[in-house]
Amino acid sequence: MPDLWQDVMDHAVTLARKAGEIVRDALQNDLKIMCKSSSVDLVTKTDQNVEQLIITSVKEKFPDHSFIGEESVAAGEPCVLTENPTWIVDPVDGTTNFVHGYPFVAISIGFAVNKMLEFGVVYSCIEDKMYTARKGKGAFCNGQPLQVSDQKEINQSIIATEFGSNRDPDAVDKIFSSMRKILCLPVHGIRGAGSAAINMCLVASGCVEAYYEIGIHCGPMDLMSRRVLAANNNIIGERIVNEIEAFSAARDDEPVNPIK
Amino acid sequence: MPDLWQDVMDHAVTLARKAGEIVRDALQNDLKIMCKSSSVDLVTKTDQNVEQLIITSVKEKFPDHSFIGEESVAAGEPCVLTENPTWIVDPVDGTTNFVHGYPFVAISIGFAVNKMLEFGVVYSCIEDKMYTARKGKGAFCNGQPLQVSDQKEINQSIIATEFGSNRDPDAVDKIFSSMRKILCLPVHGIRGAGSAAINMCLVASGCVEAYYEIGIHCGPMDLMSRRVLAANNNIIGERIVNEIEAFSAARDDEPVNPIK
Repeated sequence: MPDLWQDVMDHAVTLARKAGEIVRDALQNDLKIMCKSSSVDLVTKTDQNVEQLIITSVKEKFPDHSFIGEESVAAGEPCVLTENPTWIVDPVDGTTNFVHGYPFVAISIGFAVNKMLEFGVVYSCIEDKMYTARKGKGAFCNGQPLQVSDQKEINQSIIATEFGSNRDPDAVDKIFSSMRKILCLPVHGIRGAGSAAINMCLVASGCVEAYYEIGIHCGPMDLMSRRVLAANNNIIGERIVNEIEAFSAARDDEPVNPIK
Repeated sequence: MPDLWQDVMDHAVTLARKAGEIVRDALQNDLKIMCKSSSVDLVTKTDQNVEQLIITSVKEKFPDHSFIGEESVAAGEPCVLTENPTWIVDPVDGTTNFVHGYPFVAISIGFAVNKMLEFGVVYSCIEDKMYTARKGKGAFCNGQPLQVSDQKEINQSIIATEFGSNRDPDAVDKIFSSMRKILCLPVHGIRGAGSAAINMCLVASGCVEAYYEIGIHCGPMDLMSRRVLAANNNIIGERIVNEIEAFSAARDDEPVNPIK
């Protein structure tokens, strides 16, 4: 049976690579024009240009597909996942890194049908690493198969997480409290690439055992829940869950969205 | 006037590159044999092999030079900086990253004469970036001149720091407390590469505005003080200093060394 969505995935890879070139060009020519939302949650003209490039191309090639893009949602477009084939795009994941030239910046494209992810493409464009994963067919980096870590001992693990852009004191309390508990299990270390998509790819690559974060947009399980935990196995995953203090982050598919 | 130490620096670059090949080979062949000191402060056979390679080559080529190497000191060699031309070497900076395949691992070589640094060489071997700096002649990455960030606003800065390998509750309290104060200034973000040498190179490259850490070995000012602050300018540097709670880390040149 031919793969129903292979041509869509191929196109996503092409678009991610093209978008990566735009990001690298902007970095080299120091074209990092801010059109920011808050003093810490940054948006640049490049985020918007890259998203527009992807939307335009998808509409032309797959006119019946839906689209959820970070910048479109920020500009007021609805953020609702339907059964329809849907592209879920973060045009520049790691915008703060991009603004500073910190070397982890990704173009992140997910594709869901019937609310299930069919494939994911993450292009870490400064590193020039193209991560691809197709449901049931494994994950790859630049064509090489990836393998998660086989570590089962939490105290021999590295955990990835982020401070995020929420500076609400209650949220910051919980972020630090969870991080401290995890550090003192003890673990080998805590890292954060500054890009959710790249953190997940680091789990897939076996470089870190797990990645968790509360408050991101579009996690992999309940796509709209804004919580994510990716782990190499259940043992490490469950061990981490015990240490994380949750805090409320408004769902992405609720019409009124007062982020606490 | 010919540069007195240029041939020494050239040799350091050659050695760093050779050492980087050993590290990359070990990563590719999954040869990460532990000979660890504690559950979080890791040492591998590769750390020791690389240091031995560098010591042997330096003794042969520059028999009158002194040598301070992380693994030699850990094995009981004295850690005293004299006026003599001295190589200061961390054979694998970011050993935890190395063990996990996290992409920031460096060979770090400093060279001091009369207790003043003459040059520094940091080879980030997974990224294949060779950072070099010669006193009074600027800093370079793969031959391209580097420039620190010109940012003067702390709340538009990224600060690099590390959780480190100290899990003493008092030290961890202070590490988290300082980090929280800095995050909520607010700053754009906090990052940590997991390698002190690479964090400093990120300051030199303008990717982060400053890097601080307490408890590392061989900082740049008072080489034995175990505190380091690298910043793009005085304004950012002094702003950061205000937020950092110090904790005692025994000096590296004291004979008895009970790290608190």
